[in-house]
Amino acid sequence: MAGTRMVVVGGDAAGMSAAAQARRRRPPDELEIVGFERGRHTSYSACGLPYYAGDVVKDWRDLVARSPEEHAEQDIEVRTRHEVEAIDLEARRVRVRDLDGGRTVEEPWDVLVVATGSEPLRPPIDGIDLPGVYGLSVLQDGIELRRAIDAGPRRAVIVGGGYIGLEAAEALVNRGVSTALVEAAPQVMSQLDPDMGELVSQAVRDIGVELHLEEKVEAIEGDGRVRAVRTAARTLDADLVVLGLGTRPAVGLAESSGIQLGESGAIAVNPRMQTAHDGVWAAGDCVEARHLVSGEPVSFHLGTIANKQGRVCGINIGGGYATFPGVLGTAVSKVCDVEVARTGLSEAGLDELGLEWEQTAVDSTTRAGYFPGAAPIRTKVLAERRSGRLLGAQIVGRDGAAKRIDVFATAIWNGMTAQEMVNLDLSYAPPFSPVWDPVLIAVRKLSEQVERSLGDRL
Amino acid sequence: MAGTRMVVVGGDAAGMSAAAQARRRRPPDELEIVGFERGRHTSYSACGLPYYAGDVVKDWRDLVARSPEEHAEQDIEVRTRHEVEAIDLEARRVRVRDLDGGRTVEEPWDVLVVATGSEPLRPPIDGIDLPGVYGLSVLQDGIELRRAIDAGPRRAVIVGGGYIGLEAAEALVNRGVSTALVEAAPQVMSQLDPDMGELVSQAVRDIGVELHLEEKVEAIEGDGRVRAVRTAARTLDADLVVLGLGTRPAVGLAESSGIQLGESGAIAVNPRMQTAHDGVWAAGDCVEARHLVSGEPVSFHLGTIANKQGRVCGINIGGGYATFPGVLGTAVSKVCDVEVARTGLSEAGLDELGLEWEQTAVDSTTRAGYFPGAAPIRTKVLAERRSGRLLGAQIVGRDGAAKRIDVFATAIWNGMTAQEMVNLDLSYAPPFSPVWDPVLIAVRKLSEQVERSLGDRL
Repeated sequence: MAGTRMVVVGGDAAGMSAAAQARRRRPPDELEIVGFERGRHTSYSACGLPYYAGDVVKDWRDLVARSPEEHAEQDIEVRTRHEVEAIDLEARRVRVRDLDGGRTVEEPWDVLVVATGSEPLRPPIDGIDLPGVYGLSVLQDGIELRRAIDAGPRRAVIVGGGYIGLEAAEALVNRGVSTALVEAAPQVMSQLDPDMGELVSQAVRDIGVELHLEEKVEAIEGDGRVRAVRTAARTLDADLVVLGLGTRPAVGLAESSGIQLGESGAIAVNPRMQTAHDGVWAAGDCVEARHLVSGEPVSFHLGTIANKQGRVCGINIGGGYATFPGVLGTAVSKVCDVEVARTGLSEAGLDELGLEWEQTAVDSTTRAGYFPGAAPIRTKVLAERRSGRLLGAQIVGRDGAAKRIDVFATAIWNGMTAQEMVNLDLSYAPPFSPVWDPVLIAVRKLSEQVERSLGDRL
Repeated sequence: MAGTRMVVVGGDAAGMSAAAQARRRRPPDELEIVGFERGRHTSYSACGLPYYAGDVVKDWRDLVARSPEEHAEQDIEVRTRHEVEAIDLEARRVRVRDLDGGRTVEEPWDVLVVATGSEPLRPPIDGIDLPGVYGLSVLQDGIELRRAIDAGPRRAVIVGGGYIGLEAAEALVNRGVSTALVEAAPQVMSQLDPDMGELVSQAVRDIGVELHLEEKVEAIEGDGRVRAVRTAARTLDADLVVLGLGTRPAVGLAESSGIQLGESGAIAVNPRMQTAHDGVWAAGDCVEARHLVSGEPVSFHLGTIANKQGRVCGINIGGGYATFPGVLGTAVSKVCDVEVARTGLSEAGLDELGLEWEQTAVDSTTRAGYFPGAAPIRTKVLAERRSGRLLGAQIVGRDGAAKRIDVFATAIWNGMTAQEMVNLDLSYAPPFSPVWDPVLIAVRKLSEQVERSLGDRL
């Protein structure tokens, strides 16, 4: 065949979005597309895993957006259980191991997309590999954790209070498992400022989780099977442990193949998702992106970003033109009824940049105060001192609170100031918000602080 | 007293916001503030009236954000049941009638705020003044309609399928009243495009309302009390009628006093909310604002706008500096479980401007498709052909759908194109949205159409 051969390393969001977009623009006789995926599954929702483990989602197959067979229908061949072990940038080949068959083959490419994703952090804690210790990173993890919960554990310990840890806590509590959570930092959800993080810590306690902050795990104990988690302060019984210690970009393959990494440690790409190497593209958790507030390269691992970057990558490979401008780190989660969201920079991030800022946190309601179902919402906003440029926002509240973060994300994306944002024409009706939406109440107060910082009469 | 005297005509959102903001900046010995309000109540939520009528809100007092007594605590004197009958721009006086006492007095002002609001359209239909025919405009209307529904009417007819008409329909149906709705246009909610309006019409039918479109009311019949509503096509029995025929700016006083109106028929103001007359300010439903997409003067009657304009007006009167940039006409409502929202211009508005556009409407879900409670959402977006500049958006869906309009409002406010907006870093987790939020699915599709209109390879 005289066409171009596109090889995709990684069969999840970024890689398969790139493949799909490239295919839409170039037919099979022009572009052959082959993907290699180490796991058994393609294009699934890793974010759905805690909900499958918690039996909110009944069937793991529902988490799969597109199976290898469905990709094949679009003339995209994905070989699962095939791990790419090496990339030869000169010869334009990859070495691929068939994990079930054991065979290793060399595969040529004209265009390569590195979409190896991220991998969970696994610090060298004694006992971390004991049976009964689960991660929640790939689909197989979710299937195994669900099976372990189905078996009826008495007591679980979660290590790490980030998104995965908190979502796992909700799952375990909903399944009736007595649960403790250990976090080395002084708060859960370190992406939030301490005052907002404390609200989430309280939410974790309120659902009945035994929360231990500022305690580092020293060892996971057991003989042949996990029995306890030991911290400096105590030993917590556990017949099930879930690790949620964060993730790092999976760049081992890229690095050993000589692909250039960026400052953040993830693969460096230009806005079209091209690496420094001819014909080599990369997208998703394994690449770095520009933070649109700080201007700095960052490595976030979020499905939204991976999908968008994969799309941009595939459009360009397909002969179109698209760029990925950067990220704000917008994220949302919940702990049972408590919703949590954030975007932009937190106080710690602003400190690092040496910026001065005003901040406010206001309590309001998700609907008109007099309307049934009006739920509490605390909205925190950060803006640059004097200029008023919006820098970040955080929301903790109940039903209907968190998705309002998207308004802040859009405002920050556009470089709005608090003073401008006050007049933003947002929607209102009593079942949906107070006449001043909580978002606007917060920026209204913040804009007054900014103006006061200018010495205006207020 | 050597201070300035601020007189406010109208004791609701705009006027009282102006008063409160001015008071915050200038103490009573510097600025005396007196408001005159024709009705019995101040600062209440007119948008809450249908929900009080429908017994969702139990006590009308909950709709009052601030009573005259509470204003008095802030050194703002509001005289209710006092109607300003004339404004003398030269002598700087108003003539005020005490509606209960019958007396007329002249009151001086140094600064005048005209915040007379809007008034319901009441076309000269035979029988429109019959007992049993209700409006839903001021608090007293809500109290009376609620009393009428409490009395157990058998059958109600609503005239007009706008926000008030639909919210009244929900209220009546929820109270068990057999209800018909008559609308002269081919659809309800004429602010929506026909395709989206049809979804709302269907929602109205689905809750059991007998819907008659393209039927104009010719007469309201009865003797001493309403008995029926007659259209060209039929006569509908009714022992209760609710009018929702729209509103117009209440500018009779302003006009007769020589205050300059704008093209839209509402009072013309500059961005600081000053009229053309020295010392005379105006805010709220009675003034016109610039539409930020069309650039044209418009007269919308929404509590959000009134509150913001009142705030801007009061800051300026108080010696600060603030401007009101304009509006998008963002609005949200619901018909029982069906949520409806819009912002920017609709197809009809774009036609009037002679703009060419691309549009798309996509069906998605409010949560990840596999997540329990994922509700349908249809998102329509309009963007200028070739440039891709976003011009308007409309949403019809269920739980969690409508408030997403605020993301479009923020994007349109900032002049974003569909192509830019695709990469917007919006929040995602399975309980809150699909990985591509419905908002982004719509702009993604739209951006492809825009690029296709440029001849790009897609």
